[in-house]
Amino acid sequence: MSQITIIKNMPIISTKGKNMPESPIRKLVPYAEDAKKRGIEVFHLNIGQPDINTPQIALDAIKNNTIKVLAYSRSEGSEEYRTKIAAYYAKNNIDVTASDIIVTTGGSEALLFAMGSITDPNDEIIIPEPFYANYIGFSTASGVKIVPVISKIENNFALPPISEFEKLITPKTKAILICNPGNPTGYLYSKEEIEKLAEIVKKHNLFLIADEVYREFVYDNEQHQSILSGFGLDNHAIIIDSVSKRYSMCGARIGCLVSKNKELIQTALKFAQARLSPPTFAQIASEAALDTPQSYFDEVIVEYKGRRDLLIQELNKIEGVKVANPKGAFYCVAELPVDNADKFAQWLLEDFNLNNQTVMVAPCAGFYSTPGIGTNQVRIAYVLKKEDLIKSVEILKLAIETYNNN
Amino acid sequence: MSQITIIKNMPIISTKGKNMPESPIRKLVPYAEDAKKRGIEVFHLNIGQPDINTPQIALDAIKNNTIKVLAYSRSEGSEEYRTKIAAYYAKNNIDVTASDIIVTTGGSEALLFAMGSITDPNDEIIIPEPFYANYIGFSTASGVKIVPVISKIENNFALPPISEFEKLITPKTKAILICNPGNPTGYLYSKEEIEKLAEIVKKHNLFLIADEVYREFVYDNEQHQSILSGFGLDNHAIIIDSVSKRYSMCGARIGCLVSKNKELIQTALKFAQARLSPPTFAQIASEAALDTPQSYFDEVIVEYKGRRDLLIQELNKIEGVKVANPKGAFYCVAELPVDNADKFAQWLLEDFNLNNQTVMVAPCAGFYSTPGIGTNQVRIAYVLKKEDLIKSVEILKLAIETYNNN
Repeated sequence: MSQITIIKNMPIISTKGKNMPESPIRKLVPYAEDAKKRGIEVFHLNIGQPDINTPQIALDAIKNNTIKVLAYSRSEGSEEYRTKIAAYYAKNNIDVTASDIIVTTGGSEALLFAMGSITDPNDEIIIPEPFYANYIGFSTASGVKIVPVISKIENNFALPPISEFEKLITPKTKAILICNPGNPTGYLYSKEEIEKLAEIVKKHNLFLIADEVYREFVYDNEQHQSILSGFGLDNHAIIIDSVSKRYSMCGARIGCLVSKNKELIQTALKFAQARLSPPTFAQIASEAALDTPQSYFDEVIVEYKGRRDLLIQELNKIEGVKVANPKGAFYCVAELPVDNADKFAQWLLEDFNLNNQTVMVAPCAGFYSTPGIGTNQVRIAYVLKKEDLIKSVEILKLAIETYNNN
Repeated sequence: MSQITIIKNMPIISTKGKNMPESPIRKLVPYAEDAKKRGIEVFHLNIGQPDINTPQIALDAIKNNTIKVLAYSRSEGSEEYRTKIAAYYAKNNIDVTASDIIVTTGGSEALLFAMGSITDPNDEIIIPEPFYANYIGFSTASGVKIVPVISKIENNFALPPISEFEKLITPKTKAILICNPGNPTGYLYSKEEIEKLAEIVKKHNLFLIADEVYREFVYDNEQHQSILSGFGLDNHAIIIDSVSKRYSMCGARIGCLVSKNKELIQTALKFAQARLSPPTFAQIASEAALDTPQSYFDEVIVEYKGRRDLLIQELNKIEGVKVANPKGAFYCVAELPVDNADKFAQWLLEDFNLNNQTVMVAPCAGFYSTPGIGTNQVRIAYVLKKEDLIKSVEILKLAIETYNNN
């Protein structure tokens, strides 16, 4: 009775709030914590948090700051910082000025500003899947419908045929969103693929949003193709960027939105003004990070490339495992010979260990919006040292055998 | 012809984006910048950026940090920080635990999470006006309609009769939102007023959202009444909080959302997960700031009270000026004997100076959602030293006379 009274007196949660997705990894966190309590070491292949040190120049800038009053910065980010970002882009063959840039609280906020500026409730954005799981959260928060185009592990998750996009365009379609290089796929779009996307967004007057936060993480001498590098997309392109991965500064929460479409920038600025400013300390670190020597990146790329090669090689040795070869970022998607990756990931934490060690992986279901696909795929992040990656794959191999024999 | 082609090829901005308000102050910024270029000193009475130093303990925590990898924190904020916030609340007669708190990127994000968790597009939130201008931005971004209840300068902007709220409640009403003490009004709600609000939200099963970021800034030995201090609102209350004003750390961008409604917290956490985490450096500073000695606040309150008394006294000397007596925060609303405060504020910057000095004020129209009211009111922030406040009011007095003689 009292239970009923309490529920009756409860104000209600919105449908939007109910529809917000849980982090696909978070469901597994309690099992990982329990495993650790039982004394089991968990190798975290599930996260996008690099183990690489933040550049010393960025950390020093924070230590040497002389702030007395920690004041708001400008809503669009400080002039100095945006000017330096523009110079960074120029070096990367992206021709923009400070006024084309709005500094945001992480790439997350840049995507929220973009969605708010170009979509109304029930509008649609087409995204090749699997895609970064949090796109679902931002879309739900913005009232936008994601329309997925399935990319396939057999093709390393290359761009699906452009005719597949064309079929899905309706008057409600406002944009195509890509992540390049891809999280979770590690796929790097070719010049030809970006050209096809450029053509279709111009034909249908859509925005092309590219999440390019992994721009630097490209292997095998491939070339990253930014959507603002010569595809004639000045009116259509919106770049989402972030310092999080580039400088191993995930906790800074600094990103930016970049566009040469003035109306888009003016609109996004209004969203930025409402939340006053991006974090000041983190802007100081991020501005200093732009002076990180090239040797830092050279070392990081060598390290990631080595890890990737090792990981892919070892995964391919496991019978029944299919793995896409990533050309960028620091993730790969592997299809496992198990009935269900969600159940398997939980079982790894709850019921399995090899010499008191186990692994945590990110089941891929949360990276698809089409229900029922990718259910035996996992995302593996190579953000661990090589010796730990070797141990992790060894654990995974034995675990698959044991799981399937039960 | 080419102009037309360009427009035709332009992807379109959303209605939401078009409806996002410009900052009511920003329109005046170019005029202030021009005045400064002409060598005129501008006293900024228009901003909420305190001139008070940030507590040294918070700045030292940043300088002494030992971070090597600037990693994500937990989406809800670190356990340690939330535990310390809960202890701060306990001292303020607000009985919550760490699990009732989600650390956010400023109070701004806390309000966005609250709106997202409890409203769907076209739902309504009732707010006494004038209110903090950015509430319009957050509502527009969330697709929520603000339903205003007019509070009056003649009553110092006290809570309007509760019957006025009752009249406006529809099935679409999800919450009542107050700011206490008020920005821009400086009004401090009494225990009886909060009791009335508590009664009406319980009767109609609404949330009561209280923006309590100015909690410490209360004068004349009055007592701040938090909505979570004994009003029986465990299911209904959502507190929006921030370190920005409390510790003069506006640039930190750290706030929190507080509620004892578990479903609300679980829902808001999903919004928090989508954006990964609040800024790490700023959390370190904010956690340290909780150890700020009481003497800091004592000095700050004495300073603000002195400024308020001086400002109100001097404003009251100007013929035709009506000013509400603020009991908290660091703003007051003044009604000026001018035709239009927007025009007057622009004129102050463009066409007026006294010994090469002028003032910038925030016209109040942007703090109302009912069109056409408050048009001759301005918000004056007493975030300047006393001698500058005296000069500012002197300038204002002469300016009003000159403006009205033209």
